Amino acid sequence: MAQALRLAERGLTTTQPNPRVGCVIAHGERMVGQGWHERAGEPHAEVYALREAGEQARGATAYVTLEPCAHHGRTPPCADALIAAGVARVVIAAEDPFPQVAGKGIEKLRAAGITVESGLMREAAREINIGFFSRIERHRPWVRVKLAMSLDGRTALANGESKWITGEAARADVQRWRARSSAILTGVGTVLADNPQLTVRLPLPDEDGGQPRDPFSPTRVILDRHLRTPAGSHVLDGQTPTLVLHAASANVTDDRFANVERVAIAEQGDGLNLHAVLALLAGRGCSELHVEAGPTLCGSLFAAGLVDELLIYMAPLLLGDTARPLLTLPPLADMASRWKLQMMDCRAVGIDLRLRLRPAA
Amino acid sequence: MAQALRLAERGLTTTQPNPRVGCVIAHGERMVGQGWHERAGEPHAEVYALREAGEQARGATAYVTLEPCAHHGRTPPCADALIAAGVARVVIAAEDPFPQVAGKGIEKLRAAGITVESGLMREAAREINIGFFSRIERHRPWVRVKLAMSLDGRTALANGESKWITGEAARADVQRWRARSSAILTGVGTVLADNPQLTVRLPLPDEDGGQPRDPFSPTRVILDRHLRTPAGSHVLDGQTPTLVLHAASANVTDDRFANVERVAIAEQGDGLNLHAVLALLAGRGCSELHVEAGPTLCGSLFAAGLVDELLIYMAPLLLGDTARPLLTLPPLADMASRWKLQMMDCRAVGIDLRLRLRPAA
Repeated sequence: MAQALRLAERGLTTTQPNPRVGCVIAHGERMVGQGWHERAGEPHAEVYALREAGEQARGATAYVTLEPCAHHGRTPPCADALIAAGVARVVIAAEDPFPQVAGKGIEKLRAAGITVESGLMREAAREINIGFFSRIERHRPWVRVKLAMSLDGRTALANGESKWITGEAARADVQRWRARSSAILTGVGTVLADNPQLTVRLPLPDEDGGQPRDPFSPTRVILDRHLRTPAGSHVLDGQTPTLVLHAASANVTDDRFANVERVAIAEQGDGLNLHAVLALLAGRGCSELHVEAGPTLCGSLFAAGLVDELLIYMAPLLLGDTARPLLTLPPLADMASRWKLQMMDCRAVGIDLRLRLRPAA
Repeated sequence: MAQALRLAERGLTTTQPNPRVGCVIAHGERMVGQGWHERAGEPHAEVYALREAGEQARGATAYVTLEPCAHHGRTPPCADALIAAGVARVVIAAEDPFPQVAGKGIEKLRAAGITVESGLMREAAREINIGFFSRIERHRPWVRVKLAMSLDGRTALANGESKWITGEAARADVQRWRARSSAILTGVGTVLADNPQLTVRLPLPDEDGGQPRDPFSPTRVILDRHLRTPAGSHVLDGQTPTLVLHAASANVTDDRFANVERVAIAEQGDGLNLHAVLALLAGRGCSELHVEAGPTLCGSLFAAGLVDELLIYMAPLLLGDTARPLLTLPPLADMASRWKLQMMDCRAVGIDLRLRLRPAA
């Protein structure tokens, strides 16, 4: 199963909106076939693995990271393919949460006399598709907020200057996180200040070996309540799918937004309703949402309990107390109400430190 | 020499104001004696190692982490002891910077026909006595500033509440850094806000195995320009040597300071002259100065270029932008003037992260 998970990871940047899935077919210790899902519309992991195994699939055990599908989507059901190949036993890491699949794949296999076990390395399998599970189970994407800060938690000078706090290695690493996301979210403030591209800069660093060089292009999502994004902004260039979310009352008289899609969203307080934003994106198949925005939008998401993960690049430098804060958050009355996080991992990326944290349970 | 350095480390919290020194006596691969300096006034590392080696010292090689002394201090010169024992070769890691010793130990050994080499693992040997070298060579202590902060670089809530940002393991770890210091410095603001003890809480965590349980007591140093330290403050309790530094103009009419020493220091700008403070402390044998103070004093030290090391405990929590900053520093005009640091190490201490950084060269 560990090998099947590694195979699944090869689809990290290409399978969207589908989940990443890996499959290994084995007789005892001897592996006879392996495969992974690479791209929506193309065959599933099980199909590739069965092809490689050929006649040797008969009587074998199939290890699959996600419950095989039982329905006809763009490809025929994998459960049927496993049955047809004469596999004797199927070991599943995580059950499929998708209503059309949940449990039906397992039922179908069992009905055909195949021994089915599930739950082996379930947590790791869910982790690989954390956004997919979030989208199906919580009806919102997995929200990962990327921030670059100094040691003293500052993201820009008082004058707004923020290029470059972190080094080249950290900026390259960010591309990998963008590439695995369905969408990249920012606010109009960041567009006005930095005019970012918010695309995946290719080629991706080749750390993963077998990773394909042609990733999915995440949709750019701009929260622009009053439609202030200026003509000529990179995000309006139409180079990649872009969605501008705004208040219903906002209107525009020129053709600035000709190359992008615009959708009105309910307002709430000082901005757009962030729950509505996430629900809209989940409805459009957004699994992992990568956020690169300023302290106000990131702080609002966090304070609303909508941030699932912080991806923080910390540079070994100080900017001082007049520089801009990491996150704008409501004042705390006492230390007991501090926002607790859990450190997922911490590693050096060039001379910077990369921290990944999630809100503590 | 690596073993001699490990031996030297056993004196980390006890040798003050002397340096930590270790010595190994060997014939080829075979070690015949080892020793380390434990306490000022007691024998030096070489003496212990020669005692253990006995007759086997004859013709042997002595590995010493610091150049053997050639002068009569509280104990007789170690160079003489090595000569008397008939050692054939002496390998030295770091040359002694002390004017009464520098080079004289080596000369004396050579004059007696002993082969002397120096420089083996010199950097590691200097690191162990970084404060000692700083005091002798720069006439100021090695200044290590300890800070406890949230992920977003905040040290206290807006209302001043700061207990406890970091966890129990981090607070225990701090005791080890206090214990290796000659003095612990704070400002009157911290005394007024937190009424700290600034002593070494015993017993020290037993991570180092052989470390003695009876550490040197660092002197408490309070910067209190206007002598505002209130009666009944822990730092005035006389439990451990305490030095209150103030402006010459400050005066006091009660006996609050009866249990501590007071010294007037020149003023500079809004406070005391920090260069003068460090010179005074170095003159009194202070090698490593451990600073636990607020963002103003720590920021002033840093901005004056007087901080040699930041020891930062970062807790996995957020306090928000209204909370207090890590360091108060003068505003930066542009990113090019950012204060660059170099990460020395980073490790988990309980659920917190401990970062050790030094200003980049």
